[in-house]
Amino acid sequence: MIKKISGFLVLLLSLGLFLQYNAIADEGMWTFDNPPTKLLQQQYNFTPTADWLDHVRLSSVRFMDGGSGSFVSPNGLVMTNHHVAMFQLQKLSTAENNYVATGFYAATLDKELKCPDLEVNILVDLKNVTTEVRAAITTDMSEAEALKARDAEIARLEKESLDATGNRSNVVNLYHGGEYWLYVYKKYTDVRLVMAPERQAAYFGGDYDNFTYPRYDLDVAFFRVYENDKPVESPHYFKWSASGAAENELVFIIGNPGSTDRLLTYAQLEVQRDHTLPMLLNYIDKRIQILQDYSQKGQEQQRRALGQIFGLENSNKALTGMLNGLKDKDLMEKKKADEEKFRQLVASNPEWNEKYGDAWDIIAEAASKSALTAKERFYQTLRSGRLTQFATQIVRYVSEIKKPDAERLEGYHDSELEPLKFNLLSPAPIYKDQEQAILLGTLKMSVEELGTDDEFIKTILDGKSPDAVVTHLITKTKLDDPAYREELIKKGEKAVLKSSDPLIQLALKIDPYMRDKIQWYRDNVESIMTRESERIAEARFAVYGKDTYPDATFTLRLGYGTAKGYPYNGTIAPYKTTLYGLYDRALSFRGNPAFALPQRFWDRKDKLDLSTPANFVHTCDAVGGSSGSPTINANAEIVGILFDGNIESLVGDYYFDIEKNRSVSVHSSYIMHALRTLYDANELADEIEK
Amino acid sequence: MIKKISGFLVLLLSLGLFLQYNAIADEGMWTFDNPPTKLLQQQYNFTPTADWLDHVRLSSVRFMDGGSGSFVSPNGLVMTNHHVAMFQLQKLSTAENNYVATGFYAATLDKELKCPDLEVNILVDLKNVTTEVRAAITTDMSEAEALKARDAEIARLEKESLDATGNRSNVVNLYHGGEYWLYVYKKYTDVRLVMAPERQAAYFGGDYDNFTYPRYDLDVAFFRVYENDKPVESPHYFKWSASGAAENELVFIIGNPGSTDRLLTYAQLEVQRDHTLPMLLNYIDKRIQILQDYSQKGQEQQRRALGQIFGLENSNKALTGMLNGLKDKDLMEKKKADEEKFRQLVASNPEWNEKYGDAWDIIAEAASKSALTAKERFYQTLRSGRLTQFATQIVRYVSEIKKPDAERLEGYHDSELEPLKFNLLSPAPIYKDQEQAILLGTLKMSVEELGTDDEFIKTILDGKSPDAVVTHLITKTKLDDPAYREELIKKGEKAVLKSSDPLIQLALKIDPYMRDKIQWYRDNVESIMTRESERIAEARFAVYGKDTYPDATFTLRLGYGTAKGYPYNGTIAPYKTTLYGLYDRALSFRGNPAFALPQRFWDRKDKLDLSTPANFVHTCDAVGGSSGSPTINANAEIVGILFDGNIESLVGDYYFDIEKNRSVSVHSSYIMHALRTLYDANELADEIEK
Repeated sequence: MIKKISGFLVLLLSLGLFLQYNAIADEGMWTFDNPPTKLLQQQYNFTPTADWLDHVRLSSVRFMDGGSGSFVSPNGLVMTNHHVAMFQLQKLSTAENNYVATGFYAATLDKELKCPDLEVNILVDLKNVTTEVRAAITTDMSEAEALKARDAEIARLEKESLDATGNRSNVVNLYHGGEYWLYVYKKYTDVRLVMAPERQAAYFGGDYDNFTYPRYDLDVAFFRVYENDKPVESPHYFKWSASGAAENELVFIIGNPGSTDRLLTYAQLEVQRDHTLPMLLNYIDKRIQILQDYSQKGQEQQRRALGQIFGLENSNKALTGMLNGLKDKDLMEKKKADEEKFRQLVASNPEWNEKYGDAWDIIAEAASKSALTAKERFYQTLRSGRLTQFATQIVRYVSEIKKPDAERLEGYHDSELEPLKFNLLSPAPIYKDQEQAILLGTLKMSVEELGTDDEFIKTILDGKSPDAVVTHLITKTKLDDPAYREELIKKGEKAVLKSSDPLIQLALKIDPYMRDKIQWYRDNVESIMTRESERIAEARFAVYGKDTYPDATFTLRLGYGTAKGYPYNGTIAPYKTTLYGLYDRALSFRGNPAFALPQRFWDRKDKLDLSTPANFVHTCDAVGGSSGSPTINANAEIVGILFDGNIESLVGDYYFDIEKNRSVSVHSSYIMHALRTLYDANELADEIEK
Repeated sequence: MIKKISGFLVLLLSLGLFLQYNAIADEGMWTFDNPPTKLLQQQYNFTPTADWLDHVRLSSVRFMDGGSGSFVSPNGLVMTNHHVAMFQLQKLSTAENNYVATGFYAATLDKELKCPDLEVNILVDLKNVTTEVRAAITTDMSEAEALKARDAEIARLEKESLDATGNRSNVVNLYHGGEYWLYVYKKYTDVRLVMAPERQAAYFGGDYDNFTYPRYDLDVAFFRVYENDKPVESPHYFKWSASGAAENELVFIIGNPGSTDRLLTYAQLEVQRDHTLPMLLNYIDKRIQILQDYSQKGQEQQRRALGQIFGLENSNKALTGMLNGLKDKDLMEKKKADEEKFRQLVASNPEWNEKYGDAWDIIAEAASKSALTAKERFYQTLRSGRLTQFATQIVRYVSEIKKPDAERLEGYHDSELEPLKFNLLSPAPIYKDQEQAILLGTLKMSVEELGTDDEFIKTILDGKSPDAVVTHLITKTKLDDPAYREELIKKGEKAVLKSSDPLIQLALKIDPYMRDKIQWYRDNVESIMTRESERIAEARFAVYGKDTYPDATFTLRLGYGTAKGYPYNGTIAPYKTTLYGLYDRALSFRGNPAFALPQRFWDRKDKLDLSTPANFVHTCDAVGGSSGSPTINANAEIVGILFDGNIESLVGDYYFDIEKNRSVSVHSSYIMHALRTLYDANELADEIEK
């Protein structure tokens, strides 16, 4: 499943990963200020009008849980992937009502279930603020000062827009500092669950089939957006195409790809290959094991851990695919050749050479410095459950808000406080036994990696065993109560400093270590990387021009391509699959729970038209975060919903291969046929088709 | 499709390819004198008794068209693959009755169709003749003399056995000269077609899906063996298993794998990678183009060329897979390490070192000498249609039979004359327009590769254009008439020398060139390779012992393994597929003729139980020539019929990878369900199930 690997994304960024480009046929995650109009005209004789672009942008939705979606009725009905909805489905479920397993359908508004902490966004405005951000930096500043000044100006711009519009306002760094844009989002936080199929249908094939094709998944779910306790009017929404896309038909995706690394320097790729990715994969492997051990304790534990295990397995498979890409000698040779050509072009022009020539070497030095400290930075933190995250956030919150906005840690600027509190005060259930298992497991990993002489470890353990420490922390903390968390941040720093809550006490003790790490990284890596990547971005504009798209940044993008098969497994993969294939795979793997279909698929098999297309592939360029992207035709009608890429697409983080890289969407016909024939969801189907 | 690549096999052997081994779990193509009894007991707790081994051997059949088969009733009913039957189906078909396209079924004996030139064999006896062959060589012989003496003794042993038993008698070189065995076959040449499905059902997915899995092919056909115009009694035949093999069940294959190169020396692998395979693939590509151009001329031309195009595309895909294997750096490193270890063990023992130590270097020298002349040897011949082959055979036949048996060219010994004439005098139709297209195309290739100054080319063209030469040759020749061919070989050398047939005249002119090439190869390569490979074979026996199987030689072998899926395409492939998958793929690729199902599959779809298993994979070790192998359970019941390997199996020519190498069989349930429900072949089904 393509989803935003949020935790790891942040980490990857903090480990220093950068980007640039040069678009080829069907490649690209285009911003709405710079749509690929020329390419579309040349290749497909299609001209996206301003109205068309506005319509598809305003019909699209970002899920802050890490995915994309779209309005599919004028009454606030939003479609996304089941695996994007999973976060909320888990939070809405209990041992008695496990909607992940059973699915859910509200035939009427009053039956819809309010999500505890789901925010969705519509991109209502975007504005180039490059000049403003640049103006904050003066030539006499050190790198560290420049970084601080840049961040302060960004925070100021965001606050100014928030105050003026009341809308979520984020400054986005595009083209690695080549441009800065202010993105303004209409934001909704009352979002209610309308319909989800059983996970077995949505995630048919499980981790085995994840990131592969041919595929047969009903990876779809529906929410409704409310405001003032009423469904919002959504004048911009996508109409439905019952027949879907024909082979070779032009299609588009609109969504929020999370991050790509297509123009990392060669040195940075080597660091990823040799240090970052192996370290991450080692961590993920062990963390999956922790959760699987916990799952063994019973059915309820299994239910609780399911979503996290899915997320970790998903990351594991994605990162493994990326690492395999980096281990592919042909790919690396191509990367090297591309960079050498670029650098030669820069070197051949004395002015360019003077301005940009040494940026690659400086980045290489910073990247290797970053790699040397990666392990400490990674393990000297509480990389674990939600309770420790709350503790850290509370301790920082009460301290940061006392400072002037420009001086604060990232994440604590005025413009960021509302979403921070939305998450911090979420009423979603917290399971202490699971938190305990995770904290104990990850603490043991930190001890193993850093050794017992490490100051950070000594501070946490204080002479006791990890078991004793963790048991005490989790048993005694009251942070699982949202009211208690709210009380702490309301009472402020003094109350927090005096709090007897053991997790708060621990966070107070270790926060200085973690802040040190953040500051070290800003001073020694981030500030340098930021400046040098800006120089490379400028060099790229100078050498290759600006007719391209920026690397993915979890902001709204437009992709285009055609529905098309590809060479696979010594033969060819078809552009679409059918429901016959679903039953083939279910029966071929009978007995394997990953391929078990919900009972209704057997009970109602004879009512289904098995020739109905199930999933289809297309050449639109997508990556984690694109999940849930409406897949539309030139008439802006829904032909499907993007939910994954094929195994060959995993290397897409570094390199787009039009021959083999494919995105996978659920076919619109399957969704409609399933709603009516399998789920008796005729009200929902009618609303969509109206 | 796994089939014996007969023409190319001969060529590969003539280009100097050798072999040895070391069996691992489930690996191996075991001879019946040395079955893997210990391994079966250890791994599967199964003991094949002598009776069991005799029964499965005598129930199995070799198709001299290049494949395998088995008796499935006591009345001479033989099952093989449709793609093995293709050769005869094409020869039995006409523009009006195209059985390849329509399929065929004879409900009663009188409706069965006699094949023009099909020979099938049962291995009735096998005897170790290593001592006899060795005794023919004395230490004072040169390599060339030794080769001649060895061949003469082999011819003598074969003749002696043929005279004594009346049975086909072939001496087989096993373990690359490690052992020589006399194989005695009961031979049948009256074989009649009973049933074949449409090729679209048998070869569903066409060249795309060839050598891949998951798969859905009904690759089966039935013949009946006659003697004295009556069906033979076949007391040894396989009973039928209606349910087939369960997942992980022990299964066996009995068949005639054509050739493997698992223990080529590293130097030989390099020659294959850098010279032989690229040359062959270039040739095959162009020859496919010649036939496709010919096919464009009309529906009848398309029908005529179909079988040859299939054979060439099949070789193309197989050899491409082999070449990709040799280009895989990991595989080559493993090969190198294995050889180095072997040579070190030899070197560490002074006696071994003295006896075998330099064999690898001598082979490397001969291999590179062979590579240097490969192009000339390959293109200085009439590598084209059947008419030129007849001409060469007639010219040689009348000259060779006058010599003492020991002095003759290979293929013209007394023991070889009967099958030679069986083919030479075959009444199968010959299409002159097709022969002309092929001869012209291949002659142009020879001109292109060798240049117009080449003596061989000059002799053929004699100042004229290829077009003029070929038009004259094919238009005027009477060799398409079997009676004329018979007359020529009856009248003997004088009549042939005086013949005015232009193809005979040409063959007389160029035969000396071709004989020179053969002799050069025998003197400079084959004689050296034969001796040195014998030395390596002995070294292998000395170092590793004899508990292994010889490389494939198109002789009867026993393979074993289990029905088991494998990792594929980023996920797993199931051990079996179902008929649901057949319809999925047909509908997914609707419009692509390679995936078009016969009309009866649509007309009778609702009568089928689509959960019926279609194909399944197992770990039995197979290779070209194994096609048609009965796939049986421990009770010697048919659970399927082998017809292919997955794409990962193509590298099996060099290396058996138990993790991913799989053989593909049609499931017994599909065959029976299709016979009864799709083909109304209840008489045949009853005979099998009785």
